[in-house]
Amino acid sequence: MQEDKGALPPKETFSEWYNDILWQAEIMDVRYPVKGVYVWFPHGFAVRKATYAILRELLDKDHDETLFPLLIPENEFMKEAEHIKGFEEEVYWVTHGGTSELDVPLALRPTSETAIYPMYALWVRSHADLPIKLYQIVNTFRYETKHTRPLIRLREITSFKEAHTVHATWKDAESQVNDAVTLYRTFYDRLCVPVIISRRPEWDKFPGADYTIATDVIMPDGKTLQAGTVHHLGDHFSRTFDITYEDAQGEQQLAYQTCYGISERCIAALISTHGDDKGLVLPPAVAPVQIAIVPIIIKKREEEIRAEAEKLETELKDAGFRVKTDFRSIRPGAKYYHWEMRGVPLRIEIGPRDIDNGVVMAVTRFGEKNTVSRDSLIPGIQTIMNTFTEELKERAEQKAQEKIFSVSSLEEAREAAGKGVAVIQWCGCEECAKTIETEIDVSVLGTDVQSKYIADTAGTCIICGKPSRPAIIARTY
Amino acid sequence: MQEDKGALPPKETFSEWYNDILWQAEIMDVRYPVKGVYVWFPHGFAVRKATYAILRELLDKDHDETLFPLLIPENEFMKEAEHIKGFEEEVYWVTHGGTSELDVPLALRPTSETAIYPMYALWVRSHADLPIKLYQIVNTFRYETKHTRPLIRLREITSFKEAHTVHATWKDAESQVNDAVTLYRTFYDRLCVPVIISRRPEWDKFPGADYTIATDVIMPDGKTLQAGTVHHLGDHFSRTFDITYEDAQGEQQLAYQTCYGISERCIAALISTHGDDKGLVLPPAVAPVQIAIVPIIIKKREEEIRAEAEKLETELKDAGFRVKTDFRSIRPGAKYYHWEMRGVPLRIEIGPRDIDNGVVMAVTRFGEKNTVSRDSLIPGIQTIMNTFTEELKERAEQKAQEKIFSVSSLEEAREAAGKGVAVIQWCGCEECAKTIETEIDVSVLGTDVQSKYIADTAGTCIICGKPSRPAIIARTY
Repeated sequence: MQEDKGALPPKETFSEWYNDILWQAEIMDVRYPVKGVYVWFPHGFAVRKATYAILRELLDKDHDETLFPLLIPENEFMKEAEHIKGFEEEVYWVTHGGTSELDVPLALRPTSETAIYPMYALWVRSHADLPIKLYQIVNTFRYETKHTRPLIRLREITSFKEAHTVHATWKDAESQVNDAVTLYRTFYDRLCVPVIISRRPEWDKFPGADYTIATDVIMPDGKTLQAGTVHHLGDHFSRTFDITYEDAQGEQQLAYQTCYGISERCIAALISTHGDDKGLVLPPAVAPVQIAIVPIIIKKREEEIRAEAEKLETELKDAGFRVKTDFRSIRPGAKYYHWEMRGVPLRIEIGPRDIDNGVVMAVTRFGEKNTVSRDSLIPGIQTIMNTFTEELKERAEQKAQEKIFSVSSLEEAREAAGKGVAVIQWCGCEECAKTIETEIDVSVLGTDVQSKYIADTAGTCIICGKPSRPAIIARTY
Repeated sequence: MQEDKGALPPKETFSEWYNDILWQAEIMDVRYPVKGVYVWFPHGFAVRKATYAILRELLDKDHDETLFPLLIPENEFMKEAEHIKGFEEEVYWVTHGGTSELDVPLALRPTSETAIYPMYALWVRSHADLPIKLYQIVNTFRYETKHTRPLIRLREITSFKEAHTVHATWKDAESQVNDAVTLYRTFYDRLCVPVIISRRPEWDKFPGADYTIATDVIMPDGKTLQAGTVHHLGDHFSRTFDITYEDAQGEQQLAYQTCYGISERCIAALISTHGDDKGLVLPPAVAPVQIAIVPIIIKKREEEIRAEAEKLETELKDAGFRVKTDFRSIRPGAKYYHWEMRGVPLRIEIGPRDIDNGVVMAVTRFGEKNTVSRDSLIPGIQTIMNTFTEELKERAEQKAQEKIFSVSSLEEAREAAGKGVAVIQWCGCEECAKTIETEIDVSVLGTDVQSKYIADTAGTCIICGKPSRPAIIARTY
């Protein structure tokens, strides 16, 4: 769809690198004539498809997929007071159909609680109907006034996976929150993306939730990207929307709910975590092309080399790999560049000498060369692919670890927050948090941190000196 | 999600049957508080998922999937005059973001030409970029003023598959139109749904197209449902949006385009073609559950029967079938009813006598009983499943054939149009068509009919007597 166009800016200049790679690796086109909405290139969409296939696979074990309407009538949308407050400045309103004004303005869902819960009120009758665990993958809309950025801060979120569950008790809903957190951890693990999970402070929870657990990814510039949230909704929405059930004793009870979402920010995290100065680096699990075959053609053996490349492709495809053979009449170097930019995990070169020696040359996206015997092609490639995934994970974990700093004073915290996530001791009160946030221009992300790099040891608050536990702070996207 | 609730109205009373089956077979919930938009139940969504997986499989052979924005700025939307005329009464407008009025109102796409083609203008540079063949599966919006109906006439079309292609010449685009028609025929063939393909009259083509080929399904009440259209766009849009390419001689040329779409009307066609008085009947290809295992449990051999049912399930799943075992503690008859309503192609009953005899009882959705030896379970079931698909197709074709009538006068046409599709001789002029349409309250669907039931023989127009060819007329949805 476009020619290759020279080197990327180095990844150290993250913001420029990010904008450029989206274009060069054909993820998104940013030239659509509405602010904050973007076009998926086919390659970007193929990455999205493979990534969301993992999400679906994990959810489908005990959720059902479904689809609710985009348009929410004003009266339903306005029912839950806290929820409205959280969204009223961000909602797009449809006011006209054709040339006539609508009787009731319709909101474009910013998230679907107010679309789904009136239906849940109809569906939930008895304790035997519970739990309900549904999810949908949809477009949602936020009238963002902040600086927009592809995949990260959008006016149309094209790929919002939102799950909504209903339970008989607060405890059951809590246990679902824990399951959802585990699911998100597994999801990011499959993407080889390290995450930090924490409990958001009271003032930063989802509008209408009892509490919120969030998944953050440390981006290359040290800022964190919130890339998944899980909310215990308590009975806030079931009170508002009248979601009740008859228990085993014949009594009417309020239901308890959770919801949890992930957007295309997971793709931003994937790209940013693994990419390098040459372009994307994709885990085999989500690479649309896992192996690019580049035939090294010399004129007098052209037929033979072509035939061998096609044979290789067939064998690898039959073994389940996603393979593309690059027969274009450009230099091999240009082909290497092309496939590296697009993040293909493995390139196989096949030339006359390889044929004579009964081998192929397999080069990973990290540049590691492996000679694989033609006789044991499939197990050979499988091993290289597995090793590549492991190495990708290790590299990502090491980079994450290097960006986490345990600090014991505001000064140290200030320095750390310029480079990554600072782990501090915080008593939990809003006043101390606000002091930290204003003093060093960060956000208090949360407490109850789940990360193997952060020990949960008691201490004293760096502001007030009261007994405290670890909290994480960072500059955020 | 809901209890079973008694018999369906007979399919003869099609309109009532249709509304009721959507509810009882858990396809759509119509109680969402906005007119013309509906909620997919998980079972309905699973049917949609399997159906669209076939569509994707067919398209992915030589198209790429992608995703464009929902919101189209007013100025882009208003560029192509004929196109606007076709849609202006039906467009939803977003006028506000938060509490502020937008500078430029945004249309919710009724279809995506005006979202996609400004990008195509940027993407198409040289003849080497062509053809481009992209598709997306998205929600689109029409402010329908006519009576709305789930899956058929919607204000939010949730499942619009639209493909948009660009070619170097008018001929290339024409050949793409033919490929798309073949693709749609294959798609409906996989659903075992007979279709009639014809060329729409000039006044009924897509706004901005050179010509339109449509796919119609004859519904049980004899009305036709347009369930897929393919448009040759000529250079109308490429002129408006400036989509040009440099040819091999270095000259700038206008590109030629096609687009073609299918919506969830394909699900309406599927349900209506095959369903019967007992509920849905699904082709195995799209049945979320292909086999329901019902253990016939007697107390003293309960353990053994349960174990055998589980073993059966595992074996069938390993062979690639989608299987569900129904262990609920309700009567077997209630289970049969439940799975029949949901259209499951095959039910396997397993009781003590079957175990003793080394067999299972396999009952198709048509009620045909087959004893299958436990020793050759998989090939046995596979044969029954294939035969079932064939029979489903034959039954559907026979019903379609019975609803097609060759007629030679307006009087005969009037009678036929009450029961199905009438094949008439029509000269092709608008005046004669309007006479036919007003006299007997039908639509002239089209000419160049592709159907094995309709011979393309020359004749004379039933109105003016001039030389003519066959055309089809019907009452339409």
